[in-house]
Amino acid sequence: MIIIKIGGGKGIKDNIDNILTDIAKLDDNYIIVHGANAEMKDISERLGHPERIVKSPSGFTSRYTDLETLEIFEMVYAGVANKRIVAKLQELGVNAVGLSGVDGRLLEGKRKPHVKIIDGEKIKMLRDNHTGTVEKVNTDLLNLLLDNGYVPVICPPAISYEGDAINTDNDRIVGKLVESIGADVVLSLFEAPGLLEDANDEGSLIANIDKYKIENYMGYAKGRMKKKILHAKDAIDTGCKKIIFADGRTERPVSDALAGKGTIIS
Amino acid sequence: MIIIKIGGGKGIKDNIDNILTDIAKLDDNYIIVHGANAEMKDISERLGHPERIVKSPSGFTSRYTDLETLEIFEMVYAGVANKRIVAKLQELGVNAVGLSGVDGRLLEGKRKPHVKIIDGEKIKMLRDNHTGTVEKVNTDLLNLLLDNGYVPVICPPAISYEGDAINTDNDRIVGKLVESIGADVVLSLFEAPGLLEDANDEGSLIANIDKYKIENYMGYAKGRMKKKILHAKDAIDTGCKKIIFADGRTERPVSDALAGKGTIIS
Repeated sequence: MIIIKIGGGKGIKDNIDNILTDIAKLDDNYIIVHGANAEMKDISERLGHPERIVKSPSGFTSRYTDLETLEIFEMVYAGVANKRIVAKLQELGVNAVGLSGVDGRLLEGKRKPHVKIIDGEKIKMLRDNHTGTVEKVNTDLLNLLLDNGYVPVICPPAISYEGDAINTDNDRIVGKLVESIGADVVLSLFEAPGLLEDANDEGSLIANIDKYKIENYMGYAKGRMKKKILHAKDAIDTGCKKIIFADGRTERPVSDALAGKGTIIS
Repeated sequence: MIIIKIGGGKGIKDNIDNILTDIAKLDDNYIIVHGANAEMKDISERLGHPERIVKSPSGFTSRYTDLETLEIFEMVYAGVANKRIVAKLQELGVNAVGLSGVDGRLLEGKRKPHVKIIDGEKIKMLRDNHTGTVEKVNTDLLNLLLDNGYVPVICPPAISYEGDAINTDNDRIVGKLVESIGADVVLSLFEAPGLLEDANDEGSLIANIDKYKIENYMGYAKGRMKKKILHAKDAIDTGCKKIIFADGRTERPVSDALAGKGTIIS
């Protein structure tokens, strides 16, 4: 089983046909988890409700999600981005089915109705927050689809124990999928050649990381890469043999990555 | 099996919690098909791409769907409207799964890349059209979900034989579902008490229609009601015993309708 994470950057969206054409050639079983960050930003602005990125006291950034933001999030992720991928895969002969975490309670977790943020020097509390943390994957639906030859194409939102849709972290979803259904390989495609020694120099790729020493590389991770490294460690801890961080902007990003291009954690 | 069609009017959206709370009490098996017309109109305008309603030479109105409209359509129908229903049903203890016609090629049909319209007195041809006509329901996925206790919550777009997402008519989807999986009852909820003798007088309800005489009532149908009557006839022809047109704006619209309120075609 391969879990393929397709990032949500603009360079990835612009290259989605190449990515999916390459994926469609795979012989292995796979699940796709996708983002839609760049499109979310664009649509939020066009709807006059620009996204608000906040920083937690521990330094992680996330999107503050009031009810309107959640609805835009559902539009972009579970609506246009998900169906674009599913339709293209169907065109390529792959029997894809799109699922958000809400469907069949696929991704379930705890809602954080309030969120602590750092605003300048101050710590503040934001309310009416529709985010949360995925704690479990309800594998029944996933296994039912996989056993019957369907390829799940998964995106947030997840669902809270009380039944509220919640915005949640995609890299954590991947980690929880590894933990619940198992995966030999996690392949994460984004807008960089892999983990870089210098985030501004695409030539400074770190090609190989010993899976028992992931934490030593946290220092190289900037912004969202921090979460990727963190969840890579979780995935390794729960039995994943190999994690690949690779460039999603090339002509054959999946074949290239599986052939050893990118940052290989093993 | 009951097929419940939830209309896309504003009065329906505002009453969605009542509708779903009533649905969640049903003992029968059911499938939901939903619209999102009013929300589509609103979001299209806010995105600066207002919808363009066109009229065919035979008098039916539809939405002209260029690529951008299709993407907004996916956002609204398969994104926010679908997930709102699925999350609420999950909150109510119903194991709902949202599906567009693209997922698992659930609703497949022919794309009309060009469409003939009446513009004033003239007949014109519009190109880059992403609409089509559903010709078949791929029942494998639907039966897999139903047999395992899931409630499918279905919406357009459908998918063309070539793998393009296509905007399509919801009442026809209901008709094709009856034809393919069978249904004892079709319940259609919208913003009126049923079929009216006078479209401007909600007191002029036609309470009962003999299923062999549906065509006699075409004269009472205005606008979108024409398609509903047309597809009601198809549904009866393919074995549906009872069709109910009922008001979706009441406190218990489903129980009321099943108890005989609305227009009963049987």
